[in-house]
Amino acid sequence: MSREVNGFCKKCGFKYDFFKNYYYRCPKCGSPLDIRYDRSWNPEGRGLNRYSSMLPISVLKSVGEGSTPIVVREYNGLKLWFKLEYLNPSGSFKDRGSSLALSHAYKLGYKRIMEDSSGNTGLSVSLYSYIYGLSATIVIPKYAPSGKKDLIRLFGASIVEAPTRTDAARIALEMAKNSTIYYVAHTWNPLYPIAYKTIAYEVFEQGFHGDAVVVPIGSGGLALGLYWGFRDLYELGLIDNIPLFIGVQGVSSKPVYERLYGVVNIQGSSELADGILVREPPRLEEIAAIFKETKGCIVLIDNSDIIYGLKKLIGYGFIVEPTSASVIRGIEKAIEFCSLNNLKEVLVPLTGSGLKMLDLLVKLIKL
Amino acid sequence: MSREVNGFCKKCGFKYDFFKNYYYRCPKCGSPLDIRYDRSWNPEGRGLNRYSSMLPISVLKSVGEGSTPIVVREYNGLKLWFKLEYLNPSGSFKDRGSSLALSHAYKLGYKRIMEDSSGNTGLSVSLYSYIYGLSATIVIPKYAPSGKKDLIRLFGASIVEAPTRTDAARIALEMAKNSTIYYVAHTWNPLYPIAYKTIAYEVFEQGFHGDAVVVPIGSGGLALGLYWGFRDLYELGLIDNIPLFIGVQGVSSKPVYERLYGVVNIQGSSELADGILVREPPRLEEIAAIFKETKGCIVLIDNSDIIYGLKKLIGYGFIVEPTSASVIRGIEKAIEFCSLNNLKEVLVPLTGSGLKMLDLLVKLIKL
Repeated sequence: MSREVNGFCKKCGFKYDFFKNYYYRCPKCGSPLDIRYDRSWNPEGRGLNRYSSMLPISVLKSVGEGSTPIVVREYNGLKLWFKLEYLNPSGSFKDRGSSLALSHAYKLGYKRIMEDSSGNTGLSVSLYSYIYGLSATIVIPKYAPSGKKDLIRLFGASIVEAPTRTDAARIALEMAKNSTIYYVAHTWNPLYPIAYKTIAYEVFEQGFHGDAVVVPIGSGGLALGLYWGFRDLYELGLIDNIPLFIGVQGVSSKPVYERLYGVVNIQGSSELADGILVREPPRLEEIAAIFKETKGCIVLIDNSDIIYGLKKLIGYGFIVEPTSASVIRGIEKAIEFCSLNNLKEVLVPLTGSGLKMLDLLVKLIKL
Repeated sequence: MSREVNGFCKKCGFKYDFFKNYYYRCPKCGSPLDIRYDRSWNPEGRGLNRYSSMLPISVLKSVGEGSTPIVVREYNGLKLWFKLEYLNPSGSFKDRGSSLALSHAYKLGYKRIMEDSSGNTGLSVSLYSYIYGLSATIVIPKYAPSGKKDLIRLFGASIVEAPTRTDAARIALEMAKNSTIYYVAHTWNPLYPIAYKTIAYEVFEQGFHGDAVVVPIGSGGLALGLYWGFRDLYELGLIDNIPLFIGVQGVSSKPVYERLYGVVNIQGSSELADGILVREPPRLEEIAAIFKETKGCIVLIDNSDIIYGLKKLIGYGFIVEPTSASVIRGIEKAIEFCSLNNLKEVLVPLTGSGLKMLDLLVKLIKL
């Protein structure tokens, strides 16, 4: 691809050549960066590269990410379109983002990769770093479960242990100053939400033309990507409306909810949904705007809601992780509390695999 | 579908109506049964139902099985076509068979399902039984790992414990006499290999026209199904040759190898590949014939070969279980010992997910 692709900062106007430089955030003002490039609709082939004319960069080495199945089921009078993102190569939708980000790092000639996640992103980044022959370092708190550390080591990544999560973030930022290291920074890096646009493209081609999308909100990358994807389809004249967005946050960490509705004090815990325990999403303003613009809403769930959702999803045959299961009560609560009584068809991305934690699932299902 | 579909016994000529009755084996002579039905090539849609005109029955409730990705990589001068069967809903290719078998049980009006596997098939059968609302019983030895029992319980199946594996088989056969129970019997039930034909159809459509297929051999269902699938394509004039088959068995259990080449005594163990520890495959003669007819061969591997394969596959970004990893040394040994020097392109189905056993994978990779 020899198209012109430009990185820029919406806040201060900083510009850079996407195929020459990488910054995880704006080097002038510290804001999240975005990417500008020409798009055309010309789907061909499989996976993310089916939409390479809609993306700033192609996947150089695919391991089968994308083109995930959709399964439609009736639920309480609604038609739910389940998008099985947990059937991606490392078991989560993060593989879409990592496949683009590591292609970018590789193309730019980086040899060293760094990230500070021990969850799905950690596994996904390690996997893609390994297949490109890049040396990855993952910074995590030293009390992270040994199973998670093992996962990262499976793909030859090395681990830097920090005393706390805050220290891990601090160490990552320190390492990120080294210009020979590609700091993946999936909550900042626009390639993650850009990669998630392909989920919207796929479900459009798979026949979804429904009125809503329900999505768990951690850093908000998935919501943002889906929104950008539907907006693309709308701007291309392929769909008549952008669906409204229902965001699900946990009572233990609800920055987008509070940005929209003000600070609330709610008892309980949502720590089972460890995938959405993000306290300071870098793109908070953009994420919050989606729910306003689409006339959607954000609802809060707790551990009991997650267990409720898991049981429903297992009943459909979907082996997903707790975070993914938050969407079921999310839909019910949105109908109840946000007066979304006219919902008919809802897109439900199931984000992460439960195969990694079958023992935990069994324990929760029994509760 | 109101096509005529007949079950029959190749051995004694027994016939039955596939949509009226079910026998896990011939009620007259005890041989494996087969199914006869008209076929036409008219691929449309996704998953197994894309090929419903080539199958005796459609999948009534899909959970996203089939249409798995293919990833092509160079390896020692060969072009390997990796078929990512581990990205099926419960993490293995068995989901193709279970999706057809449970559709059949449901259509015939059975309420109770029984199977005697605690591995991938146990999980797969439990999953599909659950989504059809059928009550499943899984018979397993009492010393089976508690993790495997938990898995089965995840999908509401009940467990009957037997003192040994042999007792489990005996109890299953006893229960199978109850005509209100659908004994899935995946090593007998022709719907399993018939379902695996769709893998051949898919890789054909995905562009594979290579000269060989390498496949781990437990009960041999996967080899048989792939062979039937390629034979269909050949008979339809869609391909010019049926690829040769390379079978991989472990030194700990090698009935097909011994059927072809005579009894051998080999030191070592292949017990890491627990998916191919089948001592008496019901379709032994048919399976053995494939390797003769296609001028292929069977090779034996042990635990060290499996670990070797795992490391290679992890290097490609494939998170698979040990059984799946046997194919890598399988190819190398076939070239060396079976004089298959002209191989250029080989289909490599990767059968089961490693996400279920990440801790074991890490341990093996470190060896």
